[in-house]
Parts: sequence; structure tokens; C-alpha cells
Amino acid sequence: MPFLPLKMHGLLCDDMAIYQEYTDKNGRRRAEYNFTYLDRVMDSYLGLGLRPFLELGFMPKKLASGEQTVFYWKGNVTPPRDYGEWCALVQAVLTHLMDRYGADEVVTWPVEVWNEPNLDSFWEGADMEEYFTLFARTFAAVKAVDGRFQVGGPAICGVDDRRWMRCFLEFCRKEGLRPDHITRHHYGIEPPQEVGHYTYTTLQDPEEGFEGLRASREIVDSFAEFRGLPIHVTEFNTSYCPNSPLHDTNRNAACIAYQLSRLGDWNESYSYWTFGDVFEEAGVPFTPFHGGFGLVANGCIPKPTFWAFAFFKRLQGQCVHRGPEAVVVRRPGGGYRGVAWNRTHDGNGQVLELEFLLPMEGARACLLTETVDETTCNPLKMWHDLGEPASLSRAQRDLLRRAAAPLAGSQGVAVDGGEAKVSIVAQPNGVVYFELLPVKGQCDRGYDYSRVNGR
Amino acid sequence: MPFLPLKMHGLLCDDMAIYQEYTDKNGRRRAEYNFTYLDRVMDSYLGLGLRPFLELGFMPKKLASGEQTVFYWKGNVTPPRDYGEWCALVQAVLTHLMDRYGADEVVTWPVEVWNEPNLDSFWEGADMEEYFTLFARTFAAVKAVDGRFQVGGPAICGVDDRRWMRCFLEFCRKEGLRPDHITRHHYGIEPPQEVGHYTYTTLQDPEEGFEGLRASREIVDSFAEFRGLPIHVTEFNTSYCPNSPLHDTNRNAACIAYQLSRLGDWNESYSYWTFGDVFEEAGVPFTPFHGGFGLVANGCIPKPTFWAFAFFKRLQGQCVHRGPEAVVVRRPGGGYRGVAWNRTHDGNGQVLELEFLLPMEGARACLLTETVDETTCNPLKMWHDLGEPASLSRAQRDLLRRAAAPLAGSQGVAVDGGEAKVSIVAQPNGVVYFELLPVKGQCDRGYDYSRVNGR
Amino acid sequence: MPFLPLKMHGLLCDDMAIYQEYTDKNGRRRAEYNFTYLDRVMDSYLGLGLRPFLELGFMPKKLASGEQTVFYWKGNVTPPRDYGEWCALVQAVLTHLMDRYGADEVVTWPVEVWNEPNLDSFWEGADMEEYFTLFARTFAAVKAVDGRFQVGGPAICGVDDRRWMRCFLEFCRKEGLRPDHITRHHYGIEPPQEVGHYTYTTLQDPEEGFEGLRASREIVDSFAEFRGLPIHVTEFNTSYCPNSPLHDTNRNAACIAYQLSRLGDWNESYSYWTFGDVFEEAGVPFTPFHGGFGLVANGCIPKPTFWAFAFFKRLQGQCVHRGPEAVVVRRPGGGYRGVAWNRTHDGNGQVLELEFLLPMEGARACLLTETVDETTCNPLKMWHDLGEPASLSRAQRDLLRRAAAPLAGSQGVAVDGGEAKVSIVAQPNGVVYFELLPVKGQCDRGYDYSRVNGR
Amino acid sequence: MPFLPLKMHGLLCDDMAIYQEYTDKNGRRRAEYNFTYLDRVMDSYLGLGLRPFLELGFMPKKLASGEQTVFYWKGNVTPPRDYGEWCALVQAVLTHLMDRYGADEVVTWPVEVWNEPNLDSFWEGADMEEYFTLFARTFAAVKAVDGRFQVGGPAICGVDDRRWMRCFLEFCRKEGLRPDHITRHHYGIEPPQEVGHYTYTTLQDPEEGFEGLRASREIVDSFAEFRGLPIHVTEFNTSYCPNSPLHDTNRNAACIAYQLSRLGDWNESYSYWTFGDVFEEAGVPFTPFHGGFGLVANGCIPKPTFWAFAFFKRLQGQCVHRGPEAVVVRRPGGGYRGVAWNRTHDGNGQVLELEFLLPMEGARACLLTETVDETTCNPLKMWHDLGEPASLSRAQRDLLRRAAAPLAGSQGVAVDGGEAKVSIVAQPNGVVYFELLPVKGQCDRGYDYSRVNGR
Repeated sequence: MPFLPLKMHGLLCDDMAIYQEYTDKNGRRRAEYNFTYLDRVMDSYLGLGLRPFLELGFMPKKLASGEQTVFYWKGNVTPPRDYGEWCALVQAVLTHLMDRYGADEVVTWPVEVWNEPNLDSFWEGADMEEYFTLFARTFAAVKAVDGRFQVGGPAICGVDDRRWMRCFLEFCRKEGLRPDHITRHHYGIEPPQEVGHYTYTTLQDPEEGFEGLRASREIVDSFAEFRGLPIHVTEFNTSYCPNSPLHDTNRNAACIAYQLSRLGDWNESYSYWTFGDVFEEAGVPFTPFHGGFGLVANGCIPKPTFWAFAFFKRLQGQCVHRGPEAVVVRRPGGGYRGVAWNRTHDGNGQVLELEFLLPMEGARACLLTETVDETTCNPLKMWHDLGEPASLSRAQRDLLRRAAAPLAGSQGVAVDGGEAKVSIVAQPNGVVYFELLPVKGQCDRGYDYSRVNGR
Repeated sequence: MPFLPLKMHGLLCDDMAIYQEYTDKNGRRRAEYNFTYLDRVMDSYLGLGLRPFLELGFMPKKLASGEQTVFYWKGNVTPPRDYGEWCALVQAVLTHLMDRYGADEVVTWPVEVWNEPNLDSFWEGADMEEYFTLFARTFAAVKAVDGRFQVGGPAICGVDDRRWMRCFLEFCRKEGLRPDHITRHHYGIEPPQEVGHYTYTTLQDPEEGFEGLRASREIVDSFAEFRGLPIHVTEFNTSYCPNSPLHDTNRNAACIAYQLSRLGDWNESYSYWTFGDVFEEAGVPFTPFHGGFGLVANGCIPKPTFWAFAFFKRLQGQCVHRGPEAVVVRRPGGGYRGVAWNRTHDGNGQVLELEFLLPMEGARACLLTETVDETTCNPLKMWHDLGEPASLSRAQRDLLRRAAAPLAGSQGVAVDGGEAKVSIVAQPNGVVYFELLPVKGQCDRGYDYSRVNGR
Repeated sequence: MPFLPLKMHGLLCDDMAIYQEYTDKNGRRRAEYNFTYLDRVMDSYLGLGLRPFLELGFMPKKLASGEQTVFYWKGNVTPPRDYGEWCALVQAVLTHLMDRYGADEVVTWPVEVWNEPNLDSFWEGADMEEYFTLFARTFAAVKAVDGRFQVGGPAICGVDDRRWMRCFLEFCRKEGLRPDHITRHHYGIEPPQEVGHYTYTTLQDPEEGFEGLRASREIVDSFAEFRGLPIHVTEFNTSYCPNSPLHDTNRNAACIAYQLSRLGDWNESYSYWTFGDVFEEAGVPFTPFHGGFGLVANGCIPKPTFWAFAFFKRLQGQCVHRGPEAVVVRRPGGGYRGVAWNRTHDGNGQVLELEFLLPMEGARACLLTETVDETTCNPLKMWHDLGEPASLSRAQRDLLRRAAAPLAGSQGVAVDGGEAKVSIVAQPNGVVYFELLPVKGQCDRGYDYSRVNGR
Repeated sequence: MPFLPLKMHGLLCDDMAIYQEYTDKNGRRRAEYNFTYLDRVMDSYLGLGLRPFLELGFMPKKLASGEQTVFYWKGNVTPPRDYGEWCALVQAVLTHLMDRYGADEVVTWPVEVWNEPNLDSFWEGADMEEYFTLFARTFAAVKAVDGRFQVGGPAICGVDDRRWMRCFLEFCRKEGLRPDHITRHHYGIEPPQEVGHYTYTTLQDPEEGFEGLRASREIVDSFAEFRGLPIHVTEFNTSYCPNSPLHDTNRNAACIAYQLSRLGDWNESYSYWTFGDVFEEAGVPFTPFHGGFGLVANGCIPKPTFWAFAFFKRLQGQCVHRGPEAVVVRRPGGGYRGVAWNRTHDGNGQVLELEFLLPMEGARACLLTETVDETTCNPLKMWHDLGEPASLSRAQRDLLRRAAAPLAGSQGVAVDGGEAKVSIVAQPNGVVYFELLPVKGQCDRGYDYSRVNGR
């Protein structure tokens, strides 16, 4: 399993208050840096066991060359007024982090330069030459702080990405720069339709998206200097809109489960965009189930997709099966863990039944299942049935949390001829985690389960 | 709903270390009282929001007239060596509690004299006359501390209980004592069979048990002086054995749900025996699912019966239906709450389908359900499938907790002609909580649930 | 003791995101309200046991008539573009709060219209007539929601306050408005000097400030219609600058202790400005001890002034002494509690020794003291000694918390002739809490304190 | 610093309920093991970050050859009825722990055979030959489970210890046993006097005690086979009585600080007896300050001696000073940490003033101190002043906790000629932790501490 980093977006934005200026006694404008909020954020991250993937951006207003901003929270997307001052800011931030958290720790945090410069809403004019200047200057500045930092780009999204990727690598080759990794984003929907606060979308065929990822891989590998460089997908999801009701569904969970089984084929890591739903791109959300990117809705209610991640995280061991509908690994102690999913394009589908014959010692095994589907774990539907309340009462929030837990079940499985036969059933849009464990008889003196119910 | 007190059993036993003695300089034996552990216990109770039902017993070894003990933890069941010293002990305990927790608070804690004196394992020789002496002396001692204390007895179990009840009341009448309440126990099984660490039992017809409770009520009411005195069932359960696997089952939950719907007919309160499973009557249990009395297994795993209580606790409102399979109440805001159960005698049964027509305003309602049955919430079965481990690993414990949560679901219900039609399905041995809520349309601008899944 | 409310400042500001607009299909601009963040804030308040004093302001940018803002966080201080829309917003907020938290609860939260309209930085042009319009319209709008709401103004600070107060009341009389209470602010420094990120100030004579409060009281009482109306001091402190190092000192604590002993003479309540130090008026603070208003520094480090409040909160009972240096109350059980302080104008002063003869039963008493002075509880000094670090390491933060606790001590006191003589010593800038308790001898069998140390 | 293990005493006692028996269908008595409570205890230990030092004892009643017990909690101190069954029990316990917590972890837990067999109250007849049999059989049994276990004895106390030590080693040599470590206990008082619930004692000269420890070391080293074997002091304290008021005093803390500075000279580890005060050797304590062994009184109130440990734990670095009154270490970053103590024999003494000249870079340093003495951190005295209450109210408990924290202070220190001069003052019976830190000037723009107080 590649590591799953937490992308730290907006690090240099005005709300973080890092970049400040004052006029000295000679009337000269001078920079000063304020790390009060950065410390609070980073202390929280590390206290939760998270490490950041440092995205350098956007531009502090006072350091910007223009006025263009993106999002409700007004990230300035123009180049720096002065590249020297930009580099000084980047270096001050990294140096502060190293002072506070230790150099050996901080240099392990990957660095990415800017965000989606190939879109003119994220980088003024989507100006490729200007981005290359930004990259080269920033790359040099970071390496000057500590050569161990892993720095990469170009952080592009899927629009015109092949040309950008190729040009970026040619630029690096020409300039003799060797990025430590390559970064891009990955989404998979057709152009969406906006209605009121929401956008409605249709899923792309996922194979199309994989084709794009494979193309990125091939472009990188086609440069002798860069062959094999790790690629990080620093954002991915189905829809790239922060208000797509799709995100809240079981269907999304099944789609993402499939993505998780494939993205490692071309990439070193892939970061779901986003973890939580308290998020302001398109303004402050009006309801808890507003189609936000997050794995967890406001009120700490996990959405079905949360469980796709929770389940895949358990898949440590040796892969013995990977197909379009399931992954199975063998565990050190002799058992198995797997995830199955029943992806649908438009919400409709057939029940999926899978059967695995798994080599096993002993005579008995236990099959554990945790099932996330539209019947067992569907907080969105319950919220809808409750009348789509914008403000959850405490009772509603607690109820929705209860409705957001997988259904856990078990059954005894006979091991026959050294093999256990496991049947997994997944409803349409369902994701099923399963675990096959060897069972030793440990019956306590006098205990007879068959008598327990008097049957 | 009557209040559900926590019976404080073993208050005066040696493990509580309250009664101590020393020899003074004149060589005389003198009592001294140690409240160190009592304070720890009571602080914990009150910190959890619990109030005790004070059971006065058993006998501190140093104050006892004999050696007979009951249980692995050796409760001495003989009369006091000296009634004066016994009364001094009781008074010292109550006075200490009043000093520490406030007199006005402590006098609201009901008091019961001894435990099951009609069994010779709990009271030497099941000596009725001696118990009456104990009762009269203790009653007077408590009242002398504060006349507001509510004191009662005879705390008998179902063996020969009608004779005991009648004799007890005759004794009180003769002595001019007026107990503040009457107490008894209530269990409902045929004589059990012991195998190894376990006992296997068959359920009595619950109507037989209710008949006994009705008889107690009638005996009390047949005494003009005592007519209408509250009766507290200070212990009840299906099996009275601390190692009956029945206690851990869904079948038990359904049986107890029925009990909860009936016991208030004759009694002021009824206390399930017991809350937890860390309990030593028959020795320290060898496994987490050892058939203990508790609602919660060792490892904080709620058993199905826990949920019967959790569900009934929510039934506050005006009762609009009570039958052998369900109770429904109307809520102040116009909704309904109910519990349905599908009780079986021997574990086997038919699916139960209930339908309610409930008057309702508005056009739409939401039906919430939480289902506890052998498929959705059955930690015992999962533990069995796991191989009946005596020591749970942390992972097993966490898994069992997940398997011990009800399945929460919802559905929209149309309100037609001022009525909502609610269908509830309960599997054999299942207990289903349901709630019908009026729904106001609060659709956010642009939100269209029918488009969410693209269907 | 009057109640000490938490002023909720900035309720309607853009960061709360409540007021939003959209264009309907007829091309008309329409308001919509977003309560997502309001719910989060209010849930947190109530979860901590706090109730708000609702300040209605500042102006959402989209509803404003102008561009003028105040502070780093850009509160718009212009009148509404349309008073009808403003009133609709106010009513929507109150109605939402009542729906969520219960009408009976929410109507107990006092309401204040705007903040310091007599300063042109807080209200465009300090336009008195415009404020009166705002007040009258808002007052009527709130009362239309629920007549039980307690609404007041004019929320003025000490600048030209007598004229404003009088004109405000004349306006109300003329318009037939009867505010439920009067509000003002109270600070006590000479004009400050700004150096870099900080301002340095000199304390006013506190009696001057009290004179101003008395004047407010007299003006209100001079109107027959308004005589006796409660006055709330909705902000007070020594310095009104958010970057006055004075706030972090022991000197400040002693000054505030004196204020706490006097402010109740003319006012119903008085709210220290502010509770915490994560605060952005003059920009994000660069260091934890930056002279912020807060009682608690960033990192949860209580400042000395925190303890002045903690100590006064314990003074419940009957006042038996109030002087310029101490307050003492008698407690129901026969003991006493008091606070003494040793205020200095410029940091320098003499040791203060106070003696009290207090009537007492019994033979022995215990004097408990908790001392906050420059030696025992001075986190600012320790931070300075540590080199004034801008970013606290975890170890430094923990150390500063330890250095921010009062020193607790005790001594036995003989009761002689029905009186106990208590001596209290307060160092310059010190605040001392003390408690005199009656002591019953409870010596355990064999315990002899005089032998404990072998002395 | 050697590691400071937590001795797990009473592991096999009846309250742990591990050893059980039943009669099989052939009428034969058979052992069975119950690990329910062991799991609860060990889970708690490990959850707190503690590792046990496994003491094997005492004897389960059912496995014992006699009736003799020790303590209120009745530990049976007789040899096993059958050594084979004893060994089977020991092996079952270790095997269970390895199954549950991992073999690699559990084999790092040191093992000790029995407790103080050289006292006839702890081992029937103080029978040396019988102990050697127990040791040899147990040693072999443990090693048979896993040869990596570190097993030792003879766990003797200071009575007749030289003879026992020598005989034990001779026995081992003769039998060809090689214990992995040697264990003994270490106390330092004259014979105590008992009065009521308490014992009063006089301190021995600590050098006498050290002489005994040195003798143990020499005896071990005098055996060529055993030279250099680690010695663990598995119990130490001043008084060996569980009801010595001395334990609760500041005097005890200063004595123990000195012990901590010396015990490493001859021993690999040394374990203070005991951590907590909820402890039953002489019966359940009647009051929170009853002279128990614990570092922490009932109610989670740290006693002064707790801080001696907390302070020594911070002394990691290179020792630059060790004397009869202080230890100082140099820290990696260039600072220093130290502990000073002012020990008295009988409670009376002079103020101690120490001066250290410590090499230091830079121009300024900060001296931090945390002071535990009779004025600053003396919960025993406050409890006495409060009237020695047996049952603490919540308010009293909270107050005592506040009175049980060291006083933290700081001062600036000039570094002159590459040296800092540090003066430490310790009151009689005081323990002072200090830390000297290099200070970098980090003055924020405009901040001037000298102006803060206006002085």
C-alpha cells in the first residue's frame, strides 16, 4: 500500500496570516512572518497522527501581483509581485517548521508547487511560462533550505494535461532541474449541471480516467532523466464540484473502492479530496448533506465513502486476488481480508455474488463481514426521510451517526480439503469488507452453543 | 414509567470493609467504621447519575453469629451476634451517607432489609421468626436516624412466597409496624440443569409469573392497613442462575421486552438483575459470554437485552397501544414511539408483522427503526463463530461492540386522510424500536433527492 | 453577585456567513440565511455552559450601504442598505435560535443593538440620528418576534458618553420606546503610545472611571420613565487596546479585582473584554504574551487576571466587609471567604497587611489561601525569562501552565472568645483568595500529627 | 538512569482467581485456569504504558500445603501442595500472557520467584531449603516456556540477608543454575512503634543501608560464575510499614531523593514500594493521609515523594555533579538539569544554599525551578489544618490537589566569561528541581518588557 498523505491546501493564504508587512523607520516596506496560526494547525495535524503534503500556495494578497482570486474564501491566484520575496517567504515557513518539529521530520513532508496552474481560475491566465518560472524559483529556494526536501509539480488537473506534463518535463530537462516527484489530480465526471446550491453530474467511464493516468506515467517514463519518478495524485474524487450530491451516496463509495484498487498501478500515492465537509469553496454549505467532497459530514457523520477507505486500510498482506469487483489479501497468521464492491453507473444494478476458494489450514473458519450499502449504512437516505433538515438537532445527529455504521455479521465456514469456500454478496452500490479467520475450538467446560437457544 | 432503581447488594459485606473492631485499653472489644470503600463506590454511582436502592446485608463476619456463607465471595448469612451492634452499624452507615451526600438526598434512597430470607442459602435456616426480629429492629433503627427514610421488606424470592408475604404483613400488623413499601423478586424458569461451568434452563410461561405478582399485590391489598403500599421488584430476570447462556441471547431480550410491558401493572419499580457481568456469585467467569445476568458483557459489549431497556426508556408519552407484542406511545410534538418484540419459547418462531394506523397531521412522516435481532445485533453468535475465545483481543472486543449495535433504518411514510399506516416486522426473538415523526419539507434551493443517484 | 454574561460580538459579520443572496428566476435579488456556522458556535457555547449576550452587528457586506470596515477582520460599520432587509435578517436569526434551542431559553439571552456607535470607527460618521433609526427599527423587529426579549442600547464607550446617553433616552421617550436595559462600556487608561506591534499605556485613577459610571446611572434615573433600568457594562478592562502588555500582568489582576468589588454599585452586569487571546482586532498576534485582552493566553495559559475572576466567583454569601483592598463574605455553614488585592499605579508599592476579626464558633479554624502575585503566579515573567519565544514548544507551554497556578497554603487559626483573627499579606500587585473554615477534630485512632515529622 | 519497573505483587493470589479446580467425571481433581481478571489488570497496565516485573506468588489456597496467610488480604505463604501443579500454573500464566501480548514483548518482563522468603511471615518457617526447591523448580519451569525469560531471586529483605544471599548463590552454583539477576529489598528505619492504626518510626542513617547494598553486590561478585549479575531492588522505601505517617511528608521526599542519587551505584533497578495508596496490607486505610507507602494518596493527590521521582526522571544527560545534596546533568542542547534536596533526620534542619558554576555559551540563560517543600507543596499539612477529615469532600480533594503541585519559578541569569553562576536554595526537607536553559533574544517588534509594568 502506498502512503496516503493529507494534502495541506491554502498554506500561504491570507487566512493563515503568515505573510505580513510593515514600514520601517526609513519608510521602507519590510516583510515579517506570523506563525501563530500555522503552529495551531500543525500541532493539531501531528497530534492526530497526520503528516502534511505541503502545497505551496496561494499568494498572500500583500505579495501578489494582481487581484484575481478563486473561491468564496478568496485565494489570490496571481504570480508574486517579487520572486525574491516569495522565495524568502517559502524559506521562512520551512525553516520555522524545522525549528519547531525537527529537521529530520519536516524534510519527509513532500512539497508541491502551486495547485492546478493549467486552469485560469487557479493561475492567472493559466500561464505556463510563468508557472515554470514559479516552479524553478521555488524549487531552488526549497532545496537551498535543505536538499533532502522532496519537491515536485506541476499539480495539474485533467484539462489539457498531456501537453502540460510534456512541456513541464521538457522545461525541467532544459533547465537541468530534477523534480523529486510528479503531481497531478484525477476526477471522473462529465460536465456538471448547476441548479441552485447544487451541481448534478454523470460519471465518466472509469477506464477513461485510468487511461489518462497511464498516459501521465508514460510521458514521465519517456524522458530518460525522469523515468520511474514517483507520481502523486494529490487530489482525486468522482466529481470535482464541492456541491455534488453524488459525494454523499453509497454509489460514490463503490466507485471509489474500485479507484482504490487501481490507482496504485501508476501512482505512488493518491489523496482523496477531501477529508471533511466544513469547507468553503462555493460558500458555506447550507446543509450537512450538501454534496461536499468530505468523507465525513458536518456533525462527524461518516459517509459511505469513508468506509471504503477504512476497509482498504485493513488490506495489509499479500494480494491473492484483484479483480474489477474485489481485492483479497492473505494475512501473516493464515487468514484473509478482502473488499468487494458493486459499482453502478447510474445507481441501478444487479446483486453481485462472488465466490472465493481460499487455501486454509484447520477444520473451521469464521467469515466476518461489514456491509455498507443502501439498506445497512446510508445516512443520506435517512436525512432525506427526516425531511432534509438544514440544522441537525443533537438527536438527529446521533441517529445519523448510528445509521452511518456498517452492519457487522459473521458465519461459520467449514474448511474442506484444505480450502474454505467463501461467498460474498454485495447489493448494488454496496461495499463489503470481509475477513476469513482460522478458528480454534476453545469451548469452555460445559458450554454448548447448540443448547443456548434451547433449539 | 416507574423509576428503575439500582439495587446496591452486598453493602455491608466484608469486601466493603465497613465494620471493624479493635480492643481498647481496657481490653474491651469496640466497633469502628471504615467508609473508605463506601465513599469510592458511592462517588462512582452518583458520578454516573445513579441512585442506589440500599439493601442492608449481608452480615460482616466479625458481627455474625455463625459461619454460613453464600457464594464464591462468601457473604455471611447468619443473624447478628448482637442486634444492638447491628443497629449501630446500620445507623453509622446512614449517618455517614447523609453527612457526605446531604440528608435531603440520602433519605430518598429506598431501603430494603436483607435479601431472600425465605431461602436457607441466604438466611440461616430460612428462619422466619428471626427475620421478623431483624426487620423490626432494623426498621426502628433506620427510622430513628431520619423518619423520612422509606424502609421495606421482606425481599423474598418466589419460593413459598405467598405464605411469607402473608406472615410478614401479619407480623407487621401485630407489631404496629408500617413498612413504606413491600419488596420481592421475580424470575421465570423451570429448574435448571448444571453442566460444567454452565446451567441450561427452560422458560416458564410468563403468565404464571405474572399470576404470582398479582397474588402478591392482592395479599398486600387484603390488609386494610397496607392496601396500596408500593411493591418494588428488587430483582427480576428470566433465569436466576449467574451462568445461564440464555441471558446472552436475543431470545432473552424479547422475553424481557414483554416483561417490561407488564411489570408496571402490579409494581412500583422492577430492577433487572444485573447491570454488568463482572460478577462473582459462582466464581469468576471464564469467558465474556458465560451466561451472566448482566446487560453488558465484560469488555463493555452490550447484550441484546440492554437494548430492550434502552428502547423502553424512550417510551415517554401517552400510551395509545399495549398488546402482547408491542407498546406505542404518542409524543407531545405529534409523533409516536413504540417497541415491538417477537418472543419465542424455545428460540423458534414465525416472523411477526404488525400494522398500526396512527392519527397524524401533515402530509408526510418518517418511520425510523432500530432493529435488534439474530441477524442485526447478535454478539453472542459472532463470539461463537470466532471460536468462543475466553480472552478477547482488543480487535475482537471492538468487533463485538460493532456487532452489538442495532441496525438503524428509515423510510418515508405517506399520511393519508389524517392517518399514517405503519408496518413493523420483527424476526423471531427480535426487538424493534420505532419512531414515527411528522416531516416538514425543508428542501434547500436546488436540492433534488431524486436526482442524487441519477436514477 | 450580578451574572457575568459572555458578549457575543460579530454575530452578523461576514465570517459567520449568515446573510447570503441569490438571484431568482425573475432576476430579482433575494436573501437567504445560512446557519451552519451559527449552529457550530452556539452548540459550543451551550456545551460549555455559557449563555450569550447577543450583540446585533456588524453589517454583512452584501447588506451594507457603504464600504467602511473596522479591524483586521473587516467588520463593516455602515448602516444597512435597506432597514427592512436588516430587520428580516435579525428576525430570521432569532427565530432560528428559538427553533433550535427553545423559545423559553433564547428569550432569556439579552440583546444589544450595535457596538460603540459613538465612535466613527465603529459606526460611519458616529451618526447619532442614524443609530437611533437603527435602534428603533431593530427594537421593534426583535419585539415582534417575541415580546419577552430584553433589548437595549446604546452600547456606547466612554467618549462623549453623557451627551449620547441623554440624547438616546430622550429619543426613546419621544418615540415611546422603552428599552429593557441600558448598555455601555468602561475602560480606564490614558491615551496610549504605539510602538511596533504594541501599545503602552498609563492607568487612569479608577475613581474617575467610577464617576463616569455613576453619571450614567444618574442620567438614566433622571428620566422618570427609565428610572432604575438595569445598566449592563457589556465591555470593560483597563486598556482598550488589543496589544497592551499591561493585560498580561499581575498589576492588571489587582486593578481588576478592585473593579470587580465596585462595578456592581451602578450596574447589573459587567463583562470583561475578552475571555481568550485568539483574537484578530489588530491582526493575528505574533506571540502568546502579546498584551491581548484575554483572561487566557493562546496555549490555554491563564493570566493573573483570570484568577481575580475565579476568586470573586467563590464569594457567595453575606458581605461582611468591603473596602478598597478586600471583600469578605460570611458563608452559610459559618465560615468566611474573601479576596484581598494590593493595587499599584505603576507597578511599585508596599506590602499590604490586613487583619480581620471574624466571629466564629468552636475552638479551631483553618485559614486557606491561594496567592497570585509576581512571585507565585506570573507566567509573563517566566515567558520573558525564557527569552520571549513567539512559538511555544509543548514543554514551554506545559511549564507556563504550571507557573500560572496560584500557590495554595493553609494554617491553623485559634478561635478565641468567639473570634478568629485572620492576617492576610498581599505583595504589591498581588491578589489573595482566602477562606476561613471551622474545624472539627476528627483525629483517627492513633494518629498524632505532632509525631509525624519526629519533631 | 536504570529503568524503574512496576513490581506486580500478588499475581497468583486468590483475588486474581487464576487457579481453579474441578472434579472430572472420573472423580479426579483437575486444575483449570481463569485469566479473566489477569487480562483486566494487564490491559490496564499496558494501556498506561507500564510494564510489570512479575513476582511469582503467593500460593493459591487450593494449591497450598498449609493454612498460614499474611496480611488483611490473606496471601497464603506456604509451599505448594505439589510442585508439579505449581509449575503447571506458572507455565500456564506465562503462556497465556505470551498468547495475548506477544512472546517478544512478554519475555522482556523480568521474573522474580516469591517475596521475602527470609521472613517467616512471608514464607512458612522462613525455610531456606524449601525456598531453594521452589526457586529451582520455578526457574526450570519458566525457562522451559521460553529461555529468553530473565528469572531471578531470592527476593529477600534486609533481615539476615547476607547469609541468605550467600547460601542462595551457593545453592545455585551447586545446582548449576544461573539466575539472570539477583533481587532484594531495601528499607531504612529503626524498629517502629505501633499506636492505634499507625506506626511511628525513626530513620536509620542511610549510609548503613547503602553498606548493606554494597555487601550484596560484593557477595554476588565474589562468586566467579555470578560476577556482575544485575541486582534489582524490587522494593525500597524509608519505612516498611503500610501505616507510617512519615511516608506522607516532605521529609520522606528529601530522603528518597538522596536514595535515588545513590541506589544506581550497586543496582540495576530499584522499585519504590508502592505507587498508590489504595492498599490493604494492614486493612483498608481509614483516611487519605494514613501513612501509606504510595506516591499518590487516595483521591489522586500526589505526595511530596511523587515529585522526587518526577524530577529525577527528567535528569537525562551527562552527569556533571553528584554530591550528597544534589545531582546535575548536562543536556544535549547545552543546558543543565538538576535536583537538590535538603534531607533532615528528624524534621529539623538549616536552609541549604548551593552554588554551581556551569559552562555555558551565549550571553543569557534562564533558571527554572520547581520547589517542593513544607511551604510550597505540602498536602499533608493542609489536610491536618483542615481537621484531618477521613472522607474528603470533592472540594477538599480538589484543594489538596492544588496544594500538591510544586511552585514553579524562573529568573534570568547572566552568562559571564563562558560560565553561569546558579544559586539554589532548599528549605529543610525540601526538594528543588532546576533547569538552566540558554536563552536567545527573540524580542518581537516593539516589545519592551521593561515598560510592561510601567516601572
